[in-house]
Amino acid sequence: MNPISSPLVTDLYELTMVQAYLELGMTDTAVFELFVRKLPPQRSFLIAAGLRQALDFIQDMRFGDEELEWIERSKLFRPGFAAQLARLRFTGDIHALPEGTAFFPNEPLLRVTAPMPEAQLLETRLLNLVHFQTVVASKAARSRLAAPGKGLIDFGLRRAHGAEAGVLAARASYLAGFDGTSTVIAAPMFGIPVFGTMAHSFVQAHESERAAFEHFASVFPENAVLLIDTYDTVEGARKAVDAAQSFTMKGVRLDSGDLDTLSRQVRKVLDEAGMKNAIIFASGNLDEYRVAELVGAGAPIDSFGIGTSLVTSADYPYLDAVYKLQEYAGRPRRKRSTGKATWPGRKQVYRHYDADGRFLRDVVTVEGDPQPGERLLQPVMQGGRPLAAPRLESSRQRVLDQLARLPAALCGLQPAPAAYPVEIAPALQALAAEVDRATRG
Amino acid sequence: MNPISSPLVTDLYELTMVQAYLELGMTDTAVFELFVRKLPPQRSFLIAAGLRQALDFIQDMRFGDEELEWIERSKLFRPGFAAQLARLRFTGDIHALPEGTAFFPNEPLLRVTAPMPEAQLLETRLLNLVHFQTVVASKAARSRLAAPGKGLIDFGLRRAHGAEAGVLAARASYLAGFDGTSTVIAAPMFGIPVFGTMAHSFVQAHESERAAFEHFASVFPENAVLLIDTYDTVEGARKAVDAAQSFTMKGVRLDSGDLDTLSRQVRKVLDEAGMKNAIIFASGNLDEYRVAELVGAGAPIDSFGIGTSLVTSADYPYLDAVYKLQEYAGRPRRKRSTGKATWPGRKQVYRHYDADGRFLRDVVTVEGDPQPGERLLQPVMQGGRPLAAPRLESSRQRVLDQLARLPAALCGLQPAPAAYPVEIAPALQALAAEVDRATRG
Repeated sequence: MNPISSPLVTDLYELTMVQAYLELGMTDTAVFELFVRKLPPQRSFLIAAGLRQALDFIQDMRFGDEELEWIERSKLFRPGFAAQLARLRFTGDIHALPEGTAFFPNEPLLRVTAPMPEAQLLETRLLNLVHFQTVVASKAARSRLAAPGKGLIDFGLRRAHGAEAGVLAARASYLAGFDGTSTVIAAPMFGIPVFGTMAHSFVQAHESERAAFEHFASVFPENAVLLIDTYDTVEGARKAVDAAQSFTMKGVRLDSGDLDTLSRQVRKVLDEAGMKNAIIFASGNLDEYRVAELVGAGAPIDSFGIGTSLVTSADYPYLDAVYKLQEYAGRPRRKRSTGKATWPGRKQVYRHYDADGRFLRDVVTVEGDPQPGERLLQPVMQGGRPLAAPRLESSRQRVLDQLARLPAALCGLQPAPAAYPVEIAPALQALAAEVDRATRG
Repeated sequence: MNPISSPLVTDLYELTMVQAYLELGMTDTAVFELFVRKLPPQRSFLIAAGLRQALDFIQDMRFGDEELEWIERSKLFRPGFAAQLARLRFTGDIHALPEGTAFFPNEPLLRVTAPMPEAQLLETRLLNLVHFQTVVASKAARSRLAAPGKGLIDFGLRRAHGAEAGVLAARASYLAGFDGTSTVIAAPMFGIPVFGTMAHSFVQAHESERAAFEHFASVFPENAVLLIDTYDTVEGARKAVDAAQSFTMKGVRLDSGDLDTLSRQVRKVLDEAGMKNAIIFASGNLDEYRVAELVGAGAPIDSFGIGTSLVTSADYPYLDAVYKLQEYAGRPRRKRSTGKATWPGRKQVYRHYDADGRFLRDVVTVEGDPQPGERLLQPVMQGGRPLAAPRLESSRQRVLDQLARLPAALCGLQPAPAAYPVEIAPALQALAAEVDRATRG
């Protein structure tokens, strides 16, 4: 079985509940919403990502022979359940924020409207796909804001949490304004530019650094970025310059040490050799905080490779993202568990802008309570069929546009002094009160 | 292309280096070692995991038609490179720590000995597979130590970083002593016990909590663990007890609120109803610290569901794991980059035990410098063919045995007062000095 595509990549309780719903005839329309309950302390906004993979998953969801055989063999379910699962397809509607939209707590980024068993069955993998890309896009946007005009490349695959994490992190960071990735498969899968030249092992495998540089350039004469920190960085820069008399060196990479000081020393070596166009690429335990420091100090670095901290979102590797039942059989529902209460019903988000086009405030209300402002949730799937989805390039442009419209107070790396205003409209507050009165706990 | 199996799940520089090595005829034997440079502040030991998936990857590594077409189409490589990749198979040897072995910084957990292009090509995905499972197993072992005798279930799939992360986290946590997972596919893939019954949405979809409990029990009369915190936990416990007059309730689950107080109140309700055997299952933002508190306070909780913090290793979502060239063409190699210097040559680790069988100290030396103590690195693949690999159950037993042999100072959740002693043997120190003298930087 392949974890990327198997419907058994789900929590057991989704299957037990689906069996119960089917047996009990509880197949009325359910409305679930996927949202984030609160921001991590180190985030002032989030970027919606993963919608494309979510729609592919929903459209392709089906139980194959291998899975059905296991369902029967496991003895965890009643006879006949496998046959019901075999017929199951998603036939409902999806509304979502366009990929790349900046959003805030309590704003649904995705709404599922479908017969209960179909809607329930989506929960685990839908969260798994949307949560992770949103985590990475929200993290990546911070580096984009911290380093205007600089190249940013995802270098994280080796320490990403598995293959899918590496691949989706490449996509989510590109969506959020990175310029490319070192992950090769991101090129054929998503059309993302890929970057990379040599590792320390290449230098070490040669008898001398200079021999390594000349060897590499003989194979890649037009594209050589030479890694110069294997032994001594400034000495390495001199050797690169010497070697590059016979080819056009694209640039050098620094991967350790004091990058501020070293980049200045290396820039001097390059400039004195007349290589004004050779770029300096920096990597090595970088994150948005370190990048902001280097940019702020004026270090002459053209591009940054950011790896582990990006793809694991190391300072906060998750979001409080949930998928909650908001309506069943035409009746709004609400969870009241301590610290985890939710707003009931089908919701819509309206965004207001100031005169400069910057976000002013959002209003969350029930669908069918029209408000001024931009309506954010859009239909993306109808009756199980996806509507036209934007291309990754357009979604990336959307992120860059959103970042330009963020209130200035949200653009720094430190926590914003005040949260962005998200108002709960009177109509939604009234509905919550009504549901509380009606629920026999 | 499928990220789980595609050889394009790699960094671009692995491919550019392989092309260079092939063109330059640099196909002599290379020795790479995979190790962790230092411990996160919150870890006192690590558990080696992911070896099985690493060996599968190495053995199955080949470029298919789709990948080869892309290699040609991309124009990133010279004509003829695709044909060379098409023939490439791994023909080398692998030595590794048995899965489930506790290990420490600078101790190789895996050593690759193969022609340079084959060995280089493994780097990214090998790290990706071994790093993540080691991260999760090392995190999971802490919960196992914190909650002796308690049930521990992985609940993390929805917030794991993609599908493969969820599936491999289920495996790594089970390896490290968890009792099972909610991730269904872990059962057919690895034979891991799966757990789970109902979500809040199931309760909310019913007109009353009691109706939900009765309905669920009618479908699963022998296996019902009822979720009682949707509205009010103690009230929910009473309703569960009332409903369970008509079936055998396996237990109840608490997912929010003050779990210590609530579990005592719920235990009382269950006991007074004569349901001494009904278990209490707790979940909701748990990690090893919170579990230790609850266990320490004597909260009557039988099993814990641990999700996000486990599968993302939230307090430290990565390790400083690297794959470094240690020897090429018979000559030991060493990287000297600031803060990232490595010990050269093929290494072996010897472990010494005290009279009670607890770890006393480890010695790292060059292979071929026999020492007293247990030799930890074992051959696991020879000439591209895997040797017999232990079953997951045996590796899990190995972890439990290793945890019982850890020095007491390493068993707490707080950082150990002193690091476990890992000595660098004189022979290895002498080799490093010799390499430094010989390297023309």
